[in-house]
Amino acid sequence: MIQTPYLLFLGDAPDSLSAKVAQGIKDWRPENAVGQYRLPGCKADLGLTDMTLAEARDAGARTLVIGVANRGGVISAAWKDVLIEALKMGYDLASGLHNLLGDEESLVKAARASGGTLHDVRVPSVQYPIADGKKRRGKRVLAVGTDCSVGKMYTALALDDAMRERGMKSTFRATGQTGILITGEGVPLDAVVADFMAGSIEYLTPDNDEDHWDIIEGQGSLFHVSYSGVTLALIHGGQPDALILCHEPTRQHMRGLPDYELPTLETLRDTALPLARVANPDCEVIGISINTQHMEEAEAEAYLTRVEERMGLPSVDPFRQGASRLAEALDGL
Amino acid sequence: MIQTPYLLFLGDAPDSLSAKVAQGIKDWRPENAVGQYRLPGCKADLGLTDMTLAEARDAGARTLVIGVANRGGVISAAWKDVLIEALKMGYDLASGLHNLLGDEESLVKAARASGGTLHDVRVPSVQYPIADGKKRRGKRVLAVGTDCSVGKMYTALALDDAMRERGMKSTFRATGQTGILITGEGVPLDAVVADFMAGSIEYLTPDNDEDHWDIIEGQGSLFHVSYSGVTLALIHGGQPDALILCHEPTRQHMRGLPDYELPTLETLRDTALPLARVANPDCEVIGISINTQHMEEAEAEAYLTRVEERMGLPSVDPFRQGASRLAEALDGL
Repeated sequence: MIQTPYLLFLGDAPDSLSAKVAQGIKDWRPENAVGQYRLPGCKADLGLTDMTLAEARDAGARTLVIGVANRGGVISAAWKDVLIEALKMGYDLASGLHNLLGDEESLVKAARASGGTLHDVRVPSVQYPIADGKKRRGKRVLAVGTDCSVGKMYTALALDDAMRERGMKSTFRATGQTGILITGEGVPLDAVVADFMAGSIEYLTPDNDEDHWDIIEGQGSLFHVSYSGVTLALIHGGQPDALILCHEPTRQHMRGLPDYELPTLETLRDTALPLARVANPDCEVIGISINTQHMEEAEAEAYLTRVEERMGLPSVDPFRQGASRLAEALDGL
Repeated sequence: MIQTPYLLFLGDAPDSLSAKVAQGIKDWRPENAVGQYRLPGCKADLGLTDMTLAEARDAGARTLVIGVANRGGVISAAWKDVLIEALKMGYDLASGLHNLLGDEESLVKAARASGGTLHDVRVPSVQYPIADGKKRRGKRVLAVGTDCSVGKMYTALALDDAMRERGMKSTFRATGQTGILITGEGVPLDAVVADFMAGSIEYLTPDNDEDHWDIIEGQGSLFHVSYSGVTLALIHGGQPDALILCHEPTRQHMRGLPDYELPTLETLRDTALPLARVANPDCEVIGISINTQHMEEAEAEAYLTRVEERMGLPSVDPFRQGASRLAEALDGL
């Protein structure tokens, strides 16, 4: 578990897109972000207060989170000076970069001296069990997609917000590095060894109150041949009571696979639901989340109406409309 | 790739069951086994010539294969003396044990001195790619099961034999440690990191002659919640042209999961085939392999006849009958 709140390190980000992890933290857990730290030349700005390490520490920050992608896969000397200084001042560091903090000798040395922790959230820090398939108390919902990167994490985080607003008990359960940095904990599923994938999701979503919902962050797609095994492990390890179908209607082919067409929402439903019922015979598909970012407002609304009629389920774009109708559908289960 | 032929190390095996890896090598690749090496008290006997390390080396053995499970998860001092002596004499070592040869300091030291290789086949030795889903030349067949441990590896090896007998081109592609030790190469799929599972199977079954069949060793089951993700990665990474359904009719519940019933063969077919067609639209189910080891001969025959009528597909027990009817079905594709 990563200690909160954070100071968000934007480094020398060349644009705002490269600071997308920091943006996610600011959007979804603003209470976790006391400020931003920028180096000269930084082109990203979250609209948070710019702080020095000392100012943020005085404001309560416990961890310096690298909220930006590094260029060329190298942690630069300019970054390292700040990171080492932060460790000396008592911060932990957290990162989702491919190059690990733990592989940088100078950071390891500084952390050892300060007693600080280096969190590389791409790397599992737990020896997960093999899944036992036992029924757990409490409820779970999982977003499954026609493709990768169609908005499953966004849907889950928006649903978490909407459920809390309704006074429901819910916890967003992160399964990827961005989600883990946003919430401070989770399972980096794509880095877990095959035999332990489903077990890691059981570990992530243990017994809970009967009226508590775990909102499990989805990964991959049953129809994406590169990652489908990860998705099925999520479905069987998560034993969801409810599925939400996610789709991006303008996508021309499966992400990164030009020869593969996207399935229809009907095919996704008819594939995912029977598989989910292996682990939880009561599972239902309760709603649909459409990512309409590449559509005009009127086109998006017309599309959502058509999908809702066709599928007979609440169909929303959580970015445009929030996820309250999905939360409402879960409230009835 | 492990150098063949082997001397099979049976150690102080308490019974023949514990020497099941060695038995598999002797049954399926007798040409790989020049002899057996037994310690005092060994209760297993493969019926091979007992040889000293020197005798086997003179007979051409290149690798000493640990063909037996160790007791209590410890590589004993008695074993170690033999293993170190073998390294000194120029052998490589190969093992599928949970405790790795590479974690034993004395073996690592001896291997470094001799230039020998320690093969721990449970651990991937390759950085596999992420699957790209591109259509590959040549044909592939995969056995999928209603449950784990219903005879998928046996079916694949028997099919390999039967196809060669018909003069077909085939290669058994191992995906588990026993299969890897039998053939000397393969992918230890259950130990591969999630993101690379499907890619490891693409790597294992590359482009080949149009009339060549890769017979891919199955793992897990789509219906076994602990391992289903591994199975789906096999289906999508292998992009099989043909599936064989495997079943053990006396199994009362899914292996290790007392609350989970086995699916029917029809459900397995209707689940696996559409998923396989995501990666290969031409995939067909071509036959059924039934493990009747817990049935009397007459009962087994009656059961196979009933399944064949019900499913409209060749249905055999490859242990009792060989797999020639399955090979014949593939020959038509």
